[in-house]
Amino acid sequence: MSEKELPGYRGKVLEALMKAGVKVEDRIRILENGQIFEGILIPRSEYSDDKHIVIKIKSGYNVGIKVTPTTKIERMGVGAKLTFRPPPPPEQNPKLPRVAIVSTGGTIASRIDYRTGAVHPAITARDLYSTIPEISEKANIEVEVLFSLYSENISPSHWTELAESAARHIEAGVDGVVICHGTDTMAYTSAALSFAIQNLPVPVILVGSQRSSDRPSSDAAMNLVNAVYAAGRAPFAEVAVGMHETISDKTTVIHRGTRVRKCHTSRRDAFKSINVPPIARVEEEKITMLTEDYRKRDRKREVVLKPKFEEKVALIKFHTGFNPKIIEWYVNEGYRGIILEGTGLGHVGSSLYEHLRNAIKNDLVVGMTSQCIWGRVNMNVYDTGMDLQEIGVTPLEDLLPETALVKAMWVLGQTKSSERARELLVENIAGEISQKSYYGSDWP
Amino acid sequence: MSEKELPGYRGKVLEALMKAGVKVEDRIRILENGQIFEGILIPRSEYSDDKHIVIKIKSGYNVGIKVTPTTKIERMGVGAKLTFRPPPPPEQNPKLPRVAIVSTGGTIASRIDYRTGAVHPAITARDLYSTIPEISEKANIEVEVLFSLYSENISPSHWTELAESAARHIEAGVDGVVICHGTDTMAYTSAALSFAIQNLPVPVILVGSQRSSDRPSSDAAMNLVNAVYAAGRAPFAEVAVGMHETISDKTTVIHRGTRVRKCHTSRRDAFKSINVPPIARVEEEKITMLTEDYRKRDRKREVVLKPKFEEKVALIKFHTGFNPKIIEWYVNEGYRGIILEGTGLGHVGSSLYEHLRNAIKNDLVVGMTSQCIWGRVNMNVYDTGMDLQEIGVTPLEDLLPETALVKAMWVLGQTKSSERARELLVENIAGEISQKSYYGSDWP
Repeated sequence: MSEKELPGYRGKVLEALMKAGVKVEDRIRILENGQIFEGILIPRSEYSDDKHIVIKIKSGYNVGIKVTPTTKIERMGVGAKLTFRPPPPPEQNPKLPRVAIVSTGGTIASRIDYRTGAVHPAITARDLYSTIPEISEKANIEVEVLFSLYSENISPSHWTELAESAARHIEAGVDGVVICHGTDTMAYTSAALSFAIQNLPVPVILVGSQRSSDRPSSDAAMNLVNAVYAAGRAPFAEVAVGMHETISDKTTVIHRGTRVRKCHTSRRDAFKSINVPPIARVEEEKITMLTEDYRKRDRKREVVLKPKFEEKVALIKFHTGFNPKIIEWYVNEGYRGIILEGTGLGHVGSSLYEHLRNAIKNDLVVGMTSQCIWGRVNMNVYDTGMDLQEIGVTPLEDLLPETALVKAMWVLGQTKSSERARELLVENIAGEISQKSYYGSDWP
Repeated sequence: MSEKELPGYRGKVLEALMKAGVKVEDRIRILENGQIFEGILIPRSEYSDDKHIVIKIKSGYNVGIKVTPTTKIERMGVGAKLTFRPPPPPEQNPKLPRVAIVSTGGTIASRIDYRTGAVHPAITARDLYSTIPEISEKANIEVEVLFSLYSENISPSHWTELAESAARHIEAGVDGVVICHGTDTMAYTSAALSFAIQNLPVPVILVGSQRSSDRPSSDAAMNLVNAVYAAGRAPFAEVAVGMHETISDKTTVIHRGTRVRKCHTSRRDAFKSINVPPIARVEEEKITMLTEDYRKRDRKREVVLKPKFEEKVALIKFHTGFNPKIIEWYVNEGYRGIILEGTGLGHVGSSLYEHLRNAIKNDLVVGMTSQCIWGRVNMNVYDTGMDLQEIGVTPLEDLLPETALVKAMWVLGQTKSSERARELLVENIAGEISQKSYYGSDWP
């Protein structure tokens, strides 16, 4: 047996499997601590640990068994061929639009480890495509597996790669791009792409799921199918997020990339447009626009790629008992920007004033947003807000704190001038700022 | 004179003012029951009753005068000298409950500086009382001016003083306490008091306003009147927040102190109960309970005061591009606790792991909450969540991040043992944790 026949296995477990002379797809029996497990050895993802063997048992579920020095492994024969191998690519249908699916990892590309109950980012876009054959009826699909990451491990340099990938597909002529992404930081990434990929001719839709795709309750299938349909056909050309509108598998709602937020830890309808109506609703093969304020699809437009981000920007949430000295730490670390998540209309305690003054003297850009999430910063109402403006803190209108962070990273990636950065921060670049705001689902 | 020139005035009072030929901003003299009041007629809020005239007297304070059939109103000439005699304290009505109003500052106790247009925290509870004379019909009022602070400048030591003040009033026999507080950090303070004042026999209701009380659109009047009524009569005995339920002056909704959040920078209905239904609704003199899960009023119960807070606790919001070295800074500063505002079900990037491990080795308590705001942390779903638990990070159920911070400050103020602190953090002490969660206004 060679390592090649045991993909994903490492260390002690790899040794034990090789010693037992088994390979992936073999039917094996494991004796561990008086228990017997039988099943087909399945490959593990590159994120796997070096402690578990995973077998697919008779019920179809995967079971992970921790290997100890006393574990016994026996080869029982060749297993039935595993069913999750990708089928041959479907024929190209000239009537369908071309859509690229770029996968980055996340729950939508995950499956459950049934022993631990935990989920791994293990399925590629290609697997998904075979798991959800419906998508081939919506578009001719091109697949790229870019990363296999939990979204909390996505960094600004991944945004750059992702923006470049999306632009590449668009330049190659697709009618839309769908990006599979973990939901945890999907809104950060959608904001980043909104600034990085400008002058879009077609939609770029991020899609994720709150339940992994091998659970019956998964929201992956509907979100992906609807996102693919919308990417290929919708009349808008923006970076957007497509997720469940309600808890039922009925409609996907499309949110503007700079205006969306994950507002629930687990529900399918976790994603909400903040301060604006969503862009559109997708139900079966029907797309309903929910706003007139959107950039129209226009295949003749040419993408302008500005994928550079400055990583030395922090988002700092103010709170009662906040230690103002932390501001100094960022100044000393050579940071170029701080986005404050202040209270109410855009306030922080007066104990921060001297530290903020010092940061701004050191050429940092300091912007103010609100931890209220909904509504608009207004630093002309209270004298404290006016004090902060005098110090040089920039009020950031109705920008979401997370979008403000991403925008500051992007703006400081475009210019070396803090003065110019401050101007750009309050300029509406990708629909992130508007004059009128809506609260909750209070839009017309 | 027309109604338009007397905004906010209605019924008998409007008639009397029109008959006297005065309009808002006129200098007027009122003779009532042998007393003379002189000042500038100011508009009333949309919520006001039809019995009082409010004038701004020479000192700049507002005074409310009840109009009777014998009241005389005269329009004065320009430049006439203002004189002021404080209005007589309202008679104690033995049929009314006793309510203490403690003022700490904030917009509800603010007025506009007409020179700069900014708002100052300048009005004491006593002024409010005269500005909103309706409250004397709801309860016999005792007033204490504790601070005059914008709420972003409230610190944990103020929580201690405030808890002691509320306990003092309760021990002196009041039927309820109302605390006027700035809305910016009201939810932090309400959580703090929920832990610091235990075994409450009567309600303690924090109240604020989003528009200053000398603006016609102010929400101060209705919130204060309803909070006073509920403090004196409501069947619950908890620390709570009472604010507008909708944008209209119709109902005040009472939120549990540990479950409430300011969710809009400026709207009157900014405050929302998170993950639970609100406690009650107050409309005119009707209190409707919205949950069966509340602590009942019981005058025989004795307050248990635990007002100590540990200030060396930080709330840290994780984000894409987060610098994990910041954790070290808190360890070096001698911090005892960190509450992480992670993503989704309770995650942070793996680049934080070693720093968190080190923090926990240094005896810091590290708790995990979610920046989603709604929903529950669950660190058993993804292997990354399990990794974090193995490192020693404590998942904090459906605790709000802000409440988790305050609770950690309180818990670490009660015990020197980090082990004990971790246990207390996940124990439900003041209704801050529950098994079932609701999303938005999706409660039954």
